[in-house]
This record gives sequence, C-alpha cells and structure tokens, in this order.
Amino acid sequence: MDLFLGIDGGGTGCRAVLADASGHILGRGEAGPANIASDFTGALDNILAATRLACGTHDLTTLSAGLGLAGANAAGASDRLAQALPFARSAIETDAITAVRGALGAADGIVAAIGTGSVFAAQRGGQVRQIGGWGLVLGDEGSGAWIGRAILSAALRAVDGFHPMTPLLASLIETHGGTAGTVGFSLSARPGDFARLAPQVIDSADPAARAVMDHAITDVAAAI
Amino acid sequence: MDLFLGIDGGGTGCRAVLADASGHILGRGEAGPANIASDFTGALDNILAATRLACGTHDLTTLSAGLGLAGANAAGASDRLAQALPFARSAIETDAITAVRGALGAADGIVAAIGTGSVFAAQRGGQVRQIGGWGLVLGDEGSGAWIGRAILSAALRAVDGFHPMTPLLASLIETHGGTAGTVGFSLSARPGDFARLAPQVIDSADPAARAVMDHAITDVAAAI
Repeated sequence: MDLFLGIDGGGTGCRAVLADASGHILGRGEAGPANIASDFTGALDNILAATRLACGTHDLTTLSAGLGLAGANAAGASDRLAQALPFARSAIETDAITAVRGALGAADGIVAAIGTGSVFAAQRGGQVRQIGGWGLVLGDEGSGAWIGRAILSAALRAVDGFHPMTPLLASLIETHGGTAGTVGFSLSARPGDFARLAPQVIDSADPAARAVMDHAITDVAAAI
Repeated sequence: MDLFLGIDGGGTGCRAVLADASGHILGRGEAGPANIASDFTGALDNILAATRLACGTHDLTTLSAGLGLAGANAAGASDRLAQALPFARSAIETDAITAVRGALGAADGIVAAIGTGSVFAAQRGGQVRQIGGWGLVLGDEGSGAWIGRAILSAALRAVDGFHPMTPLLASLIETHGGTAGTVGFSLSARPGDFARLAPQVIDSADPAARAVMDHAITDVAAAI
C-alpha cells in the first residue's frame, strides 16, 4: 500500500498527516517549531517527532513525503534536510507554497501566512508568486517575531528619550532584567523567542503597542 | 613601577596602550573586533592579542587595566570578561564612556561613535548620558552594520517589487548567491559581516544606497 506523509512546519509549530493513496487519513502528529534555516537541528527533531506520532509503526523508509517548511528558501537548508530525512522520497517546498495549496487548492487568490514569521503568496492560473518570507533579520515584516522585536526596540528607545516610556515598555524592560538584560536577551533570542512577546502587544491598549501594531498592519497591507 | 593598560575595543577592531604612571607610553598593539556581547570568545582573543603586542615581556598580572568595550552594556558580558582577564585590576566600561573621555576629557560636549555599531553620549559638568548602543538586533541605528543589513533588506524588497531593482541591489544579491544565499548569509552574519558591506553603500550614487544613507543620517541626527 502506497502511503503519503504531509508535513506543515513553521516557526511556531509542526504538523504531520499520514494518508493512503485515496486520501484516507491514517494518523496525525504535532510537535514544536520547524524553521529549517533559523534552527536546523531543532527543526529536524520536531519534524521527526511529528512524523513518528502520525506514522506509528509504519516503515518510514517506504513513505513519499511532501514538506512545506519555513526557512526552505535559505541556501542549503532544503538540501541538508533532504539528506537527513529517512523517507523513500521527499519533496521540500517553502511553507508559502503549501499554504497556498492548502488554502486555495487550484483556485486564484492571495494567502497571508503570519505566525512567528510572515510570507505572502498570490496564485493566478496555477502560478504562485511569493512575496516576503525572507526571515526576521532581513524581513518578515508584521510577523509575531517582528512585533516582539519591535516592542523591545521601542522600549530601549523610550529609555533614550526618543518617545514616552509607557507601562508596557517599562514592564518589558523589567521582565527582561533591565536594559542590560534586554540587550543580552536580544543577542541570543531566536525568532520564536521574540514571537512569544507578540500576544501581549496585539492585545494591549498601550500606546507603544498600538504604534508597533499600526506599523505591522501597514506592512502587511502593503504586501497584500 | 606601576604600569597601566588602556584598551579601546569595538565591533571593528581593538587597540591597546601600555603607559607608566606619568603617562609615558611604553607600547601599543592592535587586533580585530572586540564586541564582548556579540562574540565573547573572539573579543577576548583580540583583547589579549592587542595586549601582548602592547606589553611585550611585561608581567600582565601586575597591570591595572581600563577597558572601554562595545557590548559591555549587555547582561553578564562584563562580569564574564572580568573573570577571564589576567590583570591585577580591571575596570570595564562601554566604549561610549571611554570615547567621551578620550574625545572631550572633562569638557562638555557630544560624542557620536559610529563604526560597526553606533552609540552617542553627551557630557555635561562631568556627567555622561549615553544614548543608543543597544546592539544591532534592537538598535545601532545608522551604524555600519545597520547600513549593511538595510541594503540587503532593500535588495530583497526590490525582488518582491516594493521598489525598483537598482544595479547595486542586483549586484549584492548576485554576490551573495541569489535570494537563497542572501537569506542564508543573514542568518549567520555577525554585525561585522554586515558592516563590511557599508563602504560600498556610503560611497555609492545608487538610488537604493542613497535611500539607506538618508535614513541612517536622519537617525543619527535625531540622536544628536
């Protein structure tokens, strides 16, 4: 019996589904972040953990796998992963491509995939054009990680007197151990670490949080 | 004879000077980058290399050392360095403080120290107020590293169609191995790696380079 494994892996988490040739679902699994560019080893571990949950005792070396992964557009990441995977066949694409197929099928449309990172894609007549999704260092505007980094940057600029110190900004600096702790955090923080700050920005009425969200919304609207 | 060692270490390079109690200079040394937050081990190696060049056969364990270092405002960095240094006494400050003392002595004034990173300081009546210098992830606006990162980000946004693709942007993407290579570079690049791109931006008449420099100049002017 031919079996097919589908993996959806982003900076926030990773999901796996095992199905037979008729599309009947045989198993599902979930695990942690799977951006193969920003944390290759962690991503591989989580992809395999989700796979094992979905596949149970099925022989992984007989499977055909399709993987849509954040970070697959960074040089070398996909090739390195393909060599590390145990499957009979692996097709690796960016999560933008699989998001389009999942959300639109063959129909025309636009998909904005915004989680830890951000990427946009438009499908017209079966052709997919991807916008953004370059990672937090150079892009990912409006993403959870971008929002978390922006609010910490705003907090330090408030310390410098460029704009008012708000309750949220003061609380963030205190939580991270003062300005020195905030700088220390920023130097080792991965995108997921910044993204964990995003919910309190998105839900907040604090003026600094609103300013960051206005910027994020403008960037997302420009991309769409 | 009491001997004193002065170290000036930034993201670009590190200089050491050995002097006696009357200020007579006995030796000088130079070595590579010395940001103790972004690359602790490399910074320590360079600090010790510059020290050995300055000190020759003098016994390091008898020296009193004063160090002004980039990254000294990140949590734990100074404490970790103090434990690793061989000197009898070590005083570690951020390079902003030593830049003020070096440039102004006791006089009032403003110092903008812009290299791989950027930091600003104002001295009034002996009191120093530091602005910025939070590192590239959250700040360092207008610095060499900021300029290098900004031009790569602009190159990827040109690929996305947000603004025109210029000759400089196209050349940068090609030099880095296409968009995938550019993303891959960004994920492992240290501030010094980004800063090495800055000279071709600063010297260029390319419209994208001018836009990045206009932004950098605005940020620097706002800080001053």
